[in-house]
Amino acid sequence: MLDRADFSAAHCRVGGVLEPTRLQYSRTFSNYTGHRIWIKPENLQRTGAFKARGAYNKLAKLCAGGKPAGVITASSGNHAAAVAWAALQFGVRARVVMPEDASRSKLDAVASYGGEIIQHGIYADERKERARDIAAQEKSIYVDSTDDEDVIEGQGTCALEILQEKSDVDVIVGPVGGGGLMSGVSRASKVTAPRVEIVAVEPTCSSSMYQSVCAGRPVEVNVETIADGLRTRIPGEIPYSYVSQSVDRFHQVSEDDITDAMLLALQRTKLLLEPSGAVALAGLLDGAVPGSDRDVVVIATGGNVDLDLLATLIRRGLRRQWGEDMRPE
Amino acid sequence: MLDRADFSAAHCRVGGVLEPTRLQYSRTFSNYTGHRIWIKPENLQRTGAFKARGAYNKLAKLCAGGKPAGVITASSGNHAAAVAWAALQFGVRARVVMPEDASRSKLDAVASYGGEIIQHGIYADERKERARDIAAQEKSIYVDSTDDEDVIEGQGTCALEILQEKSDVDVIVGPVGGGGLMSGVSRASKVTAPRVEIVAVEPTCSSSMYQSVCAGRPVEVNVETIADGLRTRIPGEIPYSYVSQSVDRFHQVSEDDITDAMLLALQRTKLLLEPSGAVALAGLLDGAVPGSDRDVVVIATGGNVDLDLLATLIRRGLRRQWGEDMRPE
Repeated sequence: MLDRADFSAAHCRVGGVLEPTRLQYSRTFSNYTGHRIWIKPENLQRTGAFKARGAYNKLAKLCAGGKPAGVITASSGNHAAAVAWAALQFGVRARVVMPEDASRSKLDAVASYGGEIIQHGIYADERKERARDIAAQEKSIYVDSTDDEDVIEGQGTCALEILQEKSDVDVIVGPVGGGGLMSGVSRASKVTAPRVEIVAVEPTCSSSMYQSVCAGRPVEVNVETIADGLRTRIPGEIPYSYVSQSVDRFHQVSEDDITDAMLLALQRTKLLLEPSGAVALAGLLDGAVPGSDRDVVVIATGGNVDLDLLATLIRRGLRRQWGEDMRPE
Repeated sequence: MLDRADFSAAHCRVGGVLEPTRLQYSRTFSNYTGHRIWIKPENLQRTGAFKARGAYNKLAKLCAGGKPAGVITASSGNHAAAVAWAALQFGVRARVVMPEDASRSKLDAVASYGGEIIQHGIYADERKERARDIAAQEKSIYVDSTDDEDVIEGQGTCALEILQEKSDVDVIVGPVGGGGLMSGVSRASKVTAPRVEIVAVEPTCSSSMYQSVCAGRPVEVNVETIADGLRTRIPGEIPYSYVSQSVDRFHQVSEDDITDAMLLALQRTKLLLEPSGAVALAGLLDGAVPGSDRDVVVIATGGNVDLDLLATLIRRGLRRQWGEDMRPE
């Protein structure tokens, strides 16, 4: 398994091109939870999501052994943009299989980095299969978004940055879908500062990781969540293994909780998060971190959401608030 | 007039309670303009806008001479919240006259800091008159949002922070309405780093400062703009004097330009700005800074916008984009 030296090396590699995202203290989330809450704003990361870390680390390691003819991946969007961006840094051709319902902003982002897009399916596993097929036929290198230790090593740099900026952190909270981020974050944290508690939050409607951990092996579940970055029907073996060993606590949140957290973050912290990016905050508001008065860092993983979806979510959120006030005239 | 020592003292005073907002480089705005653009994210400032600077400086100086019975002010919202917040820091009673159409979030913000709200009128001058009347009757101290050198001195700390973080800045761009911010920013900049060019951007529908500068004295104009923080019908003598002496260049922007800049900032930089907070960015996109390849800092002054207005602006912005693509079937 990845150890401290692996993550340190990745930190040097990734830190050479990506500036650290700085923790932002939130009075609002602190007041609502009774903890001291800092947001790790990975929505401000290059490509708009933490995925740039893993993709860059992977490409850098690949290219160190000689430049490949091309890379191919499958992603709901953020990993796609990250691989396209990272490949562009090294002058490598990138192709990405994205879902049929991929958001406009995510498609645009991939295209803006010169990535070639193939739209196919809705779920992660359908897309991965297609990407692996193409890789096998055309001698491209398939870069999985989660089931790859180089990618996980890169995502772990997020934890090292947190520990560097705030060494007295008590708890790190992040979302889990495919588990790439939380594999890297939980493992990097455990081998560096084992006392830090790691909490993973999942949409109730897409809880394949928690159900796999309960079952003792990766199991397949239905996933229907607005958090499009977390729609993994079955976790990969590698992330399953890391998450089940290094995450201390799991928490599930409802779809309404995700939207509410996203809108609260927008209104109070002035940060635009995509639904997946607000899942950890939703968990926090729902009591994912027990006790009180602890120093908590919450990873806001990404901010790539179409504005028309945002407008719809605002309308829906406001209707829900109005609904609570409704009484017969 | 305020000199370098005045602004330095204000910087020490204000810097004791307000952490600097850190410049955020924007690839998007850099690409669109041909300059290197850094955003000064005052939407992330305490109270959600730069106004906390001036209000805190004012209250600190007032209280140094003995705690007043109370303060009263008039504001479209951000100065109101800032005065309420600053008064709370010193345990002073604060009342604020806010417009009849004040946004929900701004009213809530004032109330959350314990400010007592009086809603009256639509325009700044109507509200100021009411506030001055109350102050005269009840021995409260009236704190003007712009026509006050202590407030202007506090707003100038924004420029000192910019110059401290990025000493090689070529141009600073900010919005002008009542002129409090740009009085402080332009004067503090001229007495500290005179080579820096200062550009002020105003909505075309609310250009009282530019028209006053052209006329050589404060003149009254009609103001109808979505940028509610900039609806000043006639500038005060003090800000008129500072702005006319220290601002190098003026630029006007349309209402659509303001909305577009606000939505572009949201989508690409992931920062929520209120319309007034996006005016300087709108100017930048519209060519307010001549030449190319210059180091430009743009002040994004605030982020307090109701989410239902945001949803409306998104819909309107998208309709405008779709409109361009519309052809007979």
